[in-house]
Amino acid sequence: MSPSVNSIAGSNSTSLEDLDVDDLTAHVIKVSSNIDNERIKFIFSRLIRHSHDFIRETAIQRHEWEAAWEFLTEAGTYPRTVPCHSMTDRSQVGQACHPERQEFILLSDVLGISALVDQINSRQLPGCTESSVLGPFHNESHEFNHGDSISSVGAGQSMLIRGTVRNRKGEPISGALLDIWETNGNGKYDMQDPETGGPDCRGKFYTDCEGRFYINGVRPVDYPVPFDGPVGIVLDLLNRQAYRPAHVHFLISHPSYERLNTALYDRTSPNIFRDPVFGTKSSLVKDIEWVEGKEEAKMYNTKTFIRVEDGSETEGFWLLEHDFILAETQGTPNLKSQL
Amino acid sequence: MSPSVNSIAGSNSTSLEDLDVDDLTAHVIKVSSNIDNERIKFIFSRLIRHSHDFIRETAIQRHEWEAAWEFLTEAGTYPRTVPCHSMTDRSQVGQACHPERQEFILLSDVLGISALVDQINSRQLPGCTESSVLGPFHNESHEFNHGDSISSVGAGQSMLIRGTVRNRKGEPISGALLDIWETNGNGKYDMQDPETGGPDCRGKFYTDCEGRFYINGVRPVDYPVPFDGPVGIVLDLLNRQAYRPAHVHFLISHPSYERLNTALYDRTSPNIFRDPVFGTKSSLVKDIEWVEGKEEAKMYNTKTFIRVEDGSETEGFWLLEHDFILAETQGTPNLKSQL
Repeated sequence: MSPSVNSIAGSNSTSLEDLDVDDLTAHVIKVSSNIDNERIKFIFSRLIRHSHDFIRETAIQRHEWEAAWEFLTEAGTYPRTVPCHSMTDRSQVGQACHPERQEFILLSDVLGISALVDQINSRQLPGCTESSVLGPFHNESHEFNHGDSISSVGAGQSMLIRGTVRNRKGEPISGALLDIWETNGNGKYDMQDPETGGPDCRGKFYTDCEGRFYINGVRPVDYPVPFDGPVGIVLDLLNRQAYRPAHVHFLISHPSYERLNTALYDRTSPNIFRDPVFGTKSSLVKDIEWVEGKEEAKMYNTKTFIRVEDGSETEGFWLLEHDFILAETQGTPNLKSQL
Repeated sequence: MSPSVNSIAGSNSTSLEDLDVDDLTAHVIKVSSNIDNERIKFIFSRLIRHSHDFIRETAIQRHEWEAAWEFLTEAGTYPRTVPCHSMTDRSQVGQACHPERQEFILLSDVLGISALVDQINSRQLPGCTESSVLGPFHNESHEFNHGDSISSVGAGQSMLIRGTVRNRKGEPISGALLDIWETNGNGKYDMQDPETGGPDCRGKFYTDCEGRFYINGVRPVDYPVPFDGPVGIVLDLLNRQAYRPAHVHFLISHPSYERLNTALYDRTSPNIFRDPVFGTKSSLVKDIEWVEGKEEAKMYNTKTFIRVEDGSETEGFWLLEHDFILAETQGTPNLKSQL
């Protein structure tokens, strides 16, 4: 070495902060806080704080961190589906549109993050119907009249969905829009079933002047969240099962009331106590009743079928009934974010 | 409503736990803990705890959460590059292979998470050279002999990289493998430069029997982390600049010593105190010296060039010199993870 050109020794004139494991976090937050938007500043400071605390507490090993981002990358690109933005696109790809599968939402779902977000965003006023997770299967559908069937022939066992929409004083809400979707009798949403040519087991309609609704569908069955991708590996890793308890989704809206995003769950489901996405709440667990005979079926235009149980046959249909209670619009400020 | 089929009232027989904002987390951890691998169990419990606490403390709004996963999805799929796994693939795509751009690693980098992981994974023993972040530009390269140039003609201003590799007793380490990579004089790594036909400004070589190394390259310059994608939006949002201070990467390995992943930074860089990925440490900040004349250049096979400063011309070359100190292998257990 030539000492004349080695100027390293004694070069302590830099004012660079040496950041160790304990003060790096404060530094990152500091340099990320030079913005005017207080909300974004706050969110990122907490995001950095928690992601760092997580890594600190677990002393994440490099190979573990590499596995994590490899996973996230795979998640973000899985699967590489054909984007579909319009009906024109749908006809071009020659089948019903498959929305891009959102593996990230699913990850959020199975980690309970979606449920947490739902809870924080839906603090119900006393007496109102509780909310539930939206899930990835909401989609556009047609408008129907009361007594119509949202399900194609042979989609499953006939079920009448009936009830009212009211406010907290018990007054009926007329003209509330109900957007309903459910699986068919095979546990598949229309978008998952290549046999389906368009919307099936989903539809929109309005409550009548007495706040009532009734529509015909099929009895939903338990189905697994998609587990053939990265999130399925997580579920396997955590020794968790993938089947959601059978349910029907309801998205209910009216200009004078808070939008309600909820679902009703079948009490007899073997998975009612182990929903992989943490959406079930006891107030939303329902008994789906068997209604015998043809009289009520005629009244609601409901198809009957022969049910065999304990060796005896009866003709009738299933009934899912619920009275939804909406909260008055709170006049919450418009929280448009720059994000 | 027909009271005969409405069995909702009084149906309190379910034992379903109602999980509110405060006890959902414990529940999710509980149902995710039914596994034998204690490490995975611990990591996921902390991941869930922190992600939930983050959402709780910030009361994340639904539109904010939607923006988050839309961002992550975009990050995961940005850009949709041609996968490239072998030299055969490279020739098929007709150009030097561009490794898939890892937007997630970059996100981790700018949030300081990568630096935190590096710190936790590289707790240096006293007296050893400190580590730095790996970054996304490490790649395969050729092997060189001492005095060779790793840089193509015209890649930048000639710089000799010289030093020794020693243990903590000051004894030279013979046969240590140095893997070096740096930008060219335009601030680009070879993989970012379409003009480059193969590896450039990167190479591998071994220390001699006295632990010495010397190789010719170019003086690196500051360059921005890729900011034309999702992470660039984050940097903009946080009012942060994207330029890393000029540096040379070193990955040094030897069977008897802990692998050292580090970098040396140019003290004169205007960004030396604001590295966007938090990789700089004062012990790694170096004075790059100007060596005048041709004598030493001949000794090390270094190209000289005419430098104009303050109106006067001198012929010489740049010198980056450092003595690296490696830690003895600790015999750490093989921490192969199931992840």
